Amino acid sequence: MKLLRFGPAGSEKPGLLDASGTIRDLSAVVSDFTAATLSFALLDRLRAIDPASLPAVPADVRLGAPLLPANLLCIGLNYKAHALEAGMALPSEPVVFSKHTSALSGPFDPVRIPPGSTKTDWEVELAVVIGRRTLHVSEQDALSCVAGYTVCNDVSERDYQIERGGQWIKAKSYPGFCPLGPVLVTADDVPDPQALRLWLSVNGEMKQDSSTADMLFPIAEIISYLSQFMELLPGDLITTGTPPGVGLGKGVYLQRGDVMRLGIDGLGEMEQTTV
Amino acid sequence: MKLLRFGPAGSEKPGLLDASGTIRDLSAVVSDFTAATLSFALLDRLRAIDPASLPAVPADVRLGAPLLPANLLCIGLNYKAHALEAGMALPSEPVVFSKHTSALSGPFDPVRIPPGSTKTDWEVELAVVIGRRTLHVSEQDALSCVAGYTVCNDVSERDYQIERGGQWIKAKSYPGFCPLGPVLVTADDVPDPQALRLWLSVNGEMKQDSSTADMLFPIAEIISYLSQFMELLPGDLITTGTPPGVGLGKGVYLQRGDVMRLGIDGLGEMEQTTV
Repeated sequence: MKLLRFGPAGSEKPGLLDASGTIRDLSAVVSDFTAATLSFALLDRLRAIDPASLPAVPADVRLGAPLLPANLLCIGLNYKAHALEAGMALPSEPVVFSKHTSALSGPFDPVRIPPGSTKTDWEVELAVVIGRRTLHVSEQDALSCVAGYTVCNDVSERDYQIERGGQWIKAKSYPGFCPLGPVLVTADDVPDPQALRLWLSVNGEMKQDSSTADMLFPIAEIISYLSQFMELLPGDLITTGTPPGVGLGKGVYLQRGDVMRLGIDGLGEMEQTTV
Repeated sequence: MKLLRFGPAGSEKPGLLDASGTIRDLSAVVSDFTAATLSFALLDRLRAIDPASLPAVPADVRLGAPLLPANLLCIGLNYKAHALEAGMALPSEPVVFSKHTSALSGPFDPVRIPPGSTKTDWEVELAVVIGRRTLHVSEQDALSCVAGYTVCNDVSERDYQIERGGQWIKAKSYPGFCPLGPVLVTADDVPDPQALRLWLSVNGEMKQDSSTADMLFPIAEIISYLSQFMELLPGDLITTGTPPGVGLGKGVYLQRGDVMRLGIDGLGEMEQTTV
């Protein structure tokens, strides 16, 4: 299934994308996709519905982030060539940080450059959505905790990240710095999450073009690792790091009016213009 | 007003503590104290109620955290003598990190030491609760965004914090690592949040005993600073750093069965036993 949220920012409704590409309204079935509602039981209930029985939604509707996670967790430096371009040491275990939840935005919403910022940067990432409470899970069982996958642009301000005290949340949390979507693809429709091409272009020029096969720490290891330090909750989002090709590597950052386009095989594409 | 949540973990109800120390049930007035419900308008509505008209609750009821914040933000190294005892440089601007929301627990709940941990540590902190959406606020206007104050024990695992990759969220997020309470005291009942004694004892021995007057970055500066990097939301919690006297300073950490007692002038006291 491909789940999504549609409508004006702040009052989105839940929906799904049917096999023909039509958006169908799920708001009579579930109030919203949030930490409070997301569960494997809900996904089973949605799978049992004939999409043709649901109201169709005009194709030009705005899309919001496909869910409202309670926690936005991020893995840093998870592709070798990206750690090298960032001038940072290869991590011996996952680097974990977070984004403030107010950074979340829709897949086609504009990305606002913070006042005075000169180092706002892009990062295409595979994002994993947790489906159940998860504490101390083994690597072997970790993928059974995944509800689905989506695309994240982990927008980052490099001056805030590197020159402002060391902890990264400051660099990752400005409103609009977490475009997510266009859809949440349930895990049963992603045969191998470690074999997906992911890419990002700026103004049509390809900047990042790699595969999730190149992660230093694969998804099962990340989830198992995180669950030793915190209890993951349904709807928690984990972005799994970015491949090489970000602006930091060449010292070239986003300017007003730049168009980022990004996608992951099987998960769809997003586009954001900087303002 | 002194607001609180009471009842079994996971199904707490909202309440208040009246002038005589009786807990009063507010669940007929508001569903819960969360990011979705907390606002200055709600606080005004609660102030208009005669507490004596609300059902009384038995005094031996379990207390939960006094609200469910959407984001748990933390300021590090905000007392000079604590930064020195931690062997860290004095920050030139606030150090910001976060805790996973599943770390939240009630003021008298036990604190579980993670399996294998030998460096679980205490940190009494003044916690600030935001009352409205806040982006790019001046220091002058910052305190007008505060809904209230409460006590936080920012429980920390020092091995996870110092030896495991640099970002601090790993050390701060284990279930039960964020005891909060016992009450949320609304800002109008805290005449000067920068002149409050805060203290913590372990097994009756005083370990931390300082004043919020000693903060390197006062609350108004912290809020204004954070709001340059992220939009703060109603119900967001900001813990403002711990004074000297944590276990890290002497290399003596919590053992199973230790009793932490901590409090802040005018905000009440909490007690947690480690298990």
